[in-house]
Amino acid sequence: MELTAREIDIATPTPTVILHTADAEELGAHPLDRIRIDRNGRTYTGVVETTTELVEEGMLAVTSRLGHVTGPVSVSLAPKPRSVAHIRSKLEDHELERPDIEQIVHDINRNRLTDVELGAYVSGLHANGLSHEETRHLTEAMTAVGERIVWSEDVVADKHSIGGVAGNRVTPIMVPIVAAAGVTVPKTSSRAITSPAGTADTMAVFCDVEFTTDEMRAIVEETGGCLVWGGGVDLSPVDDKIIRAENPLSVDPPGQIIASVLSKKKSAGSNRVLIDIPYGEHAKVTSLVGARELADDFRLVAEHLDIDIACTITRGGQPIGQGIGPILEARDVLAVLDGDGPLELRLKSVRLADILFDLCDVDADAAELLDSGAARSKFQEIVAAQGGDPEVEREDLSPGGRRHVVTAGRDGLVMTIQNRHISEVARRAGAPRDPGAGIRLHCREGDQVAAEDELFTIYAENAGKLTEAVEYHAEVEAVRIGDPDEALIERR
Amino acid sequence: MELTAREIDIATPTPTVILHTADAEELGAHPLDRIRIDRNGRTYTGVVETTTELVEEGMLAVTSRLGHVTGPVSVSLAPKPRSVAHIRSKLEDHELERPDIEQIVHDINRNRLTDVELGAYVSGLHANGLSHEETRHLTEAMTAVGERIVWSEDVVADKHSIGGVAGNRVTPIMVPIVAAAGVTVPKTSSRAITSPAGTADTMAVFCDVEFTTDEMRAIVEETGGCLVWGGGVDLSPVDDKIIRAENPLSVDPPGQIIASVLSKKKSAGSNRVLIDIPYGEHAKVTSLVGARELADDFRLVAEHLDIDIACTITRGGQPIGQGIGPILEARDVLAVLDGDGPLELRLKSVRLADILFDLCDVDADAAELLDSGAARSKFQEIVAAQGGDPEVEREDLSPGGRRHVVTAGRDGLVMTIQNRHISEVARRAGAPRDPGAGIRLHCREGDQVAAEDELFTIYAENAGKLTEAVEYHAEVEAVRIGDPDEALIERR
Repeated sequence: MELTAREIDIATPTPTVILHTADAEELGAHPLDRIRIDRNGRTYTGVVETTTELVEEGMLAVTSRLGHVTGPVSVSLAPKPRSVAHIRSKLEDHELERPDIEQIVHDINRNRLTDVELGAYVSGLHANGLSHEETRHLTEAMTAVGERIVWSEDVVADKHSIGGVAGNRVTPIMVPIVAAAGVTVPKTSSRAITSPAGTADTMAVFCDVEFTTDEMRAIVEETGGCLVWGGGVDLSPVDDKIIRAENPLSVDPPGQIIASVLSKKKSAGSNRVLIDIPYGEHAKVTSLVGARELADDFRLVAEHLDIDIACTITRGGQPIGQGIGPILEARDVLAVLDGDGPLELRLKSVRLADILFDLCDVDADAAELLDSGAARSKFQEIVAAQGGDPEVEREDLSPGGRRHVVTAGRDGLVMTIQNRHISEVARRAGAPRDPGAGIRLHCREGDQVAAEDELFTIYAENAGKLTEAVEYHAEVEAVRIGDPDEALIERR
Repeated sequence: MELTAREIDIATPTPTVILHTADAEELGAHPLDRIRIDRNGRTYTGVVETTTELVEEGMLAVTSRLGHVTGPVSVSLAPKPRSVAHIRSKLEDHELERPDIEQIVHDINRNRLTDVELGAYVSGLHANGLSHEETRHLTEAMTAVGERIVWSEDVVADKHSIGGVAGNRVTPIMVPIVAAAGVTVPKTSSRAITSPAGTADTMAVFCDVEFTTDEMRAIVEETGGCLVWGGGVDLSPVDDKIIRAENPLSVDPPGQIIASVLSKKKSAGSNRVLIDIPYGEHAKVTSLVGARELADDFRLVAEHLDIDIACTITRGGQPIGQGIGPILEARDVLAVLDGDGPLELRLKSVRLADILFDLCDVDADAAELLDSGAARSKFQEIVAAQGGDPEVEREDLSPGGRRHVVTAGRDGLVMTIQNRHISEVARRAGAPRDPGAGIRLHCREGDQVAAEDELFTIYAENAGKLTEAVEYHAEVEAVRIGDPDEALIERR
């Protein structure tokens, strides 16, 4: 069929073409079918949407994703991407072969799958899971797209924490400890998705975090480590495209978690990887059993990828540090590097670093590297290499000027500090977008408190958001005080 | 957050809002999240897409689906539709409760689900199926949206054929037979989706097929029957919205088939329903076992819906009539009504009508109603009531003037006439968009043919499409001739 193409500016990730319903009928094309467009010897494939208003008969509106196509074109029906059959096969609980998985990853990477198909892919994994074999193939296929770094060093260390725990900012402490021992540690981190701060948001308080892969390599070659945003480098780019479908469905299939994490590590050239799996109510992993299963799966898949792995299972029922939000967490990080700071944050960072040293077969002592100031110096080096001010001190980092102190209101015991709710209070206050917004906790679960004792302070950069955060806390009771005997039995 | 809204013309079924990435980050909104928009005391919900180009910071582009929203608006994060949790539950193979299913149907009907969520819904049904209870709830929920007809008659008959068989045009023959016996039969039919003609396309050769529910009722009250397009009336409108996700994934979960068919019958007020399930290679149902299972499921669900049901399982390995394509099938229909025409088409129509009479407890004889001309007169009445010319004769209906006769090319046996391939040849020739395009078969499977014998004629309305159809047949060999002994053993 001959049509006239014009461009249209629409923010869809998939190359889309909009046809008048009558032309679509003549062509036998239905919404979300593909058509092939021939123009001056070049061919393009677009996903069909139909309209009776936006596009007149004989015309074809083409999104910029497809390429610059205007003027007379020849269009015909195109077959579905081959990966759709594999996605259906997974829905039918068949085990996928390596080429099937490669095809799916390839098609996702090229933005060839529509949202319906992407939703079905994620659904298939959520419904039927992936075998270790499949997870390995998926990891390797995800590693194969995007860039890949090769280091001259034999041992390259890395770590990853499964999310959901507030104030769990061990990474900016561990990386300088590990680098201070002479171990290469090219760490990429995420920005907050649903949390009040990701490691990248916290590091952005100190320095730049957005670098190309080449720039990242230069920083690591200079300092031995880095703390950059993973979204800036092009390591395993398929992950972000899959998140588009995982987020709205609130699903996070274990096989996909493993493939996403390990493909990023593999692409970054890391071969000694520590995976921290915190478990607890409202964390991503909620039970000890679930955490152990995930750890076993990680180990089995990593074995085939020439990655030496150590998994740690940690308690994630309540926040780790005191600060929640970019600047408040950055202050905790500096405090621990100064030999001070929240005890749990220091202990966890030291313990994980020691396990990573063990995995790397390096004779080093994390506590010593902290206490000697070696880690602090290394952190300053990395901050400077990432374009920040290495001389920055805790007092230079001011949280938001609008503050509200939440007190216990009754004598009793701190029963629960709920990660999800405390995170949401911090988000309402403006984190991570307002770096000074967030929470500073003054208690931990099990503390005995009097009515007038301070539980936490909410910081915000503007009054409206502070009010919103205070009201939200009143509603959800993010920190709950109970009678001492409720610790054992809650009476309703 | 305060933004300024402007409208944007985009053909998406879901109300969509496009935000600058920076505003989306501040809001904590990710692609495919919902946001709530407040404007002059009215609230709207839109699905988020983000851009760095199409929309500048501080602006919000709103699709017309959302409503007319321009100027200053207040936006905030909105929760996911409740049905998303139910869809996830189905992916986890849990049985859904009645209110869960009602919520899903309600959200689909209101265009509240994104393509990712719609894809997950269809995926859940394909992966884990529906119990009879769930199917009944789904049927009732689908019946509850859209219009519903109540008749004064106690007995209202209807029929439905599961698709995939070319030239299976029994409906325009059965309906006048049944109506001629005094039984009310308010039949709605579909247009072709992937076939060369649906019943609605064939009827459109004779008369109008697009009517409102009120007009449809008037036609049935006048003549006792009708043959209208289901897409025109608003009976069970959710079906079309689900097809959007079923089509691209090529899935057709049995529970959804049953709910879609029976909800339409229930909404049309029918209580005596015949379901014809043809099975065969390339038909929608491929095996006898599958057909029997589907029939049992139909029966169990219908029992709870106060619908008396009869299921017929028929062979669907090859086309039924001789004509394939709107006009060519219309000629077959007139021929059978004239007491002539393809034998299989007549036999099948008569047999199905008799079974429906039995189900309605009506003492009538389909063959007699055909042979007496009563059905022919009733057909003319219906055509007239639908605005067509009742006097039209076979010779008035001319298939396309461009023709190509395919001959056997060798002596042998007609081994297979493949529905899917023969349908595709007819589609390449221009059917259903060109009503005169299609195929007339001169053979059936098992026929002994000589090299010079005609197998079928391809008709087209233009030369280019004829060539395309001829070339396609050469490629797929839609009708295959073999040696007589190959009927038993195919040697390769």
